Amino acid sequence: MSGNTDPLPGEFALIAEIFAPLATDPGAFNLTDDAAIIPVTPGQDLVLTADMLSAGVHFFADDAPAHIAQKMLRANLSDLAAKGATPHGYLLTVALPRSITLNWLREFADGLRRDQHTYGITLLGGDTTATDGPLTLSVTAIGRVPAGQMLRRSGARPGDGIYVTGSIGDSALGLMIRNGKLSGLSAQHTDYLVERYLLPQPRSVLASHLHGKVSAAIDISDGLAADLGHICHASNLGARVRAGDIPLSDAARACANVPLAQLITGGDDYELLLAIPPKHALELQNICNSLGVPLTHIGEFTVEPGIIFLDGKGAEIDLTTTGYQHF
Amino acid sequence: MSGNTDPLPGEFALIAEIFAPLATDPGAFNLTDDAAIIPVTPGQDLVLTADMLSAGVHFFADDAPAHIAQKMLRANLSDLAAKGATPHGYLLTVALPRSITLNWLREFADGLRRDQHTYGITLLGGDTTATDGPLTLSVTAIGRVPAGQMLRRSGARPGDGIYVTGSIGDSALGLMIRNGKLSGLSAQHTDYLVERYLLPQPRSVLASHLHGKVSAAIDISDGLAADLGHICHASNLGARVRAGDIPLSDAARACANVPLAQLITGGDDYELLLAIPPKHALELQNICNSLGVPLTHIGEFTVEPGIIFLDGKGAEIDLTTTGYQHF
Repeated sequence: MSGNTDPLPGEFALIAEIFAPLATDPGAFNLTDDAAIIPVTPGQDLVLTADMLSAGVHFFADDAPAHIAQKMLRANLSDLAAKGATPHGYLLTVALPRSITLNWLREFADGLRRDQHTYGITLLGGDTTATDGPLTLSVTAIGRVPAGQMLRRSGARPGDGIYVTGSIGDSALGLMIRNGKLSGLSAQHTDYLVERYLLPQPRSVLASHLHGKVSAAIDISDGLAADLGHICHASNLGARVRAGDIPLSDAARACANVPLAQLITGGDDYELLLAIPPKHALELQNICNSLGVPLTHIGEFTVEPGIIFLDGKGAEIDLTTTGYQHF
Repeated sequence: MSGNTDPLPGEFALIAEIFAPLATDPGAFNLTDDAAIIPVTPGQDLVLTADMLSAGVHFFADDAPAHIAQKMLRANLSDLAAKGATPHGYLLTVALPRSITLNWLREFADGLRRDQHTYGITLLGGDTTATDGPLTLSVTAIGRVPAGQMLRRSGARPGDGIYVTGSIGDSALGLMIRNGKLSGLSAQHTDYLVERYLLPQPRSVLASHLHGKVSAAIDISDGLAADLGHICHASNLGARVRAGDIPLSDAARACANVPLAQLITGGDDYELLLAIPPKHALELQNICNSLGVPLTHIGEFTVEPGIIFLDGKGAEIDLTTTGYQHF
């Protein structure tokens, strides 16, 4: 425990050493003031989204600090991507338990720095405080969209295709591995799934291409089934999903004894679920191909309410009771 | 403890009942989406500031829920006022311990609602999560300023007057009363000081009048001495303060045995400290008079470094060792 006892410097020193180097935007004033500025650009709206994460709920207290930082940022970047928003920056507040060391914070900041570089964002401001409770983080992420064009959960129309990026269920499987509830996989598949849980890949690169081509969007954080439900609810529609078309990674296909229901309810995918009118489907598929983002057509939105999963013969599957296997 | 055991509804129900009614701005989409929009106005910058507050550190867990809500908002509104920013709205994330009841949240929301009405702001978004630790709140407040005109800590010039709004030290005394460390006051003075601690009065009404008339500004949250130090540090100046001119309320004057040093280091005043060039002093004094905001000239910024407090004869007072009495 000797590494856990180096006292943290005071708040101002902590800001100067750990956080100020991350505040590279001129509007952050190097964190020397109480506030940040976002200059506005005519014709753009700002999109804001906020998340609170707590050790023991959203991550394990002993997760690598850089991974905690990166997953936190990426979850919010995924929210922005689903809004069609180009990321601009974020504010971060942290409640630090006494067990947090300066070294922990340096590794945490290193994770932030790496993802700031990857996604072109910067720290704009924040606050630190002490807590007797678990490490708690709150992020407000800010992005930009063309005025009036933020993508919504509502807006899907009957006949729009249901599309998802990437593959579904990897993160849920990665969490099962971390919790000791799934084993026997190859080292390669194990590493892949755990990495998908720890380091989601928000589809930021796609955000600016979605305007005018998708009628509704959401990022899959609660699970494919739940987030499809959110779009159906907001758009007042139902959905028919071809279960066999739900994209699964090779690693997920190797977990043949995990029912599909677990993959589509596990959450933390941070892929995009898009409602795409047929007339835009080919164009968007081509864009995704050129960006290297897998895009898969898994079903249609319908006037008839309810979300129905169909097997290869078009028969309805009751995912909740049959333990439908995905292999 | 029977009142503490009613289970909270799920997150979506909680948002619908408690928080959605507070999200009256169209850009908040009634909290039915994952993000809020702030339409931009040409010629304006957005100002953002974030705070994290934790029970046991920033407030008492048994403070009235409405007071916790209001003090949280007002501390952030005070930050915006010091930037010359007109408040627009806020995002709020909350980590709720199991001891928080639905009734507690209703009272908390009622405090938010009242101050939203008073200050013309609205809830724009947020997040709720559970925690095993203390109640923790994080606010990102958003305001608007004319482009390029956010007030800074830097910018004060030698010869600028040091001005403060309202009275100093009331909140520190109110906290002493709450902690049982100050007694013997009249009921009227006691109530006044505790109220000043619980419900600060951010000077939002003044914000839009400061542009072009003050050279630097800060809100007094760390104490007059520390926040004056922040401006001096950022502006690379010193300060000479006439201790006898520091504005004190009648209730503070009644606390004759509390040294002045405690009043100017206690913090939580949420008054404004302004650097005003002599040529703008009269105009700003007249504006404050017309707005009903007391404004007091307490000293000057100087080329010579250091912050010096002077007695009525112009001699330097060592506040740290003499226990200088303010009566």
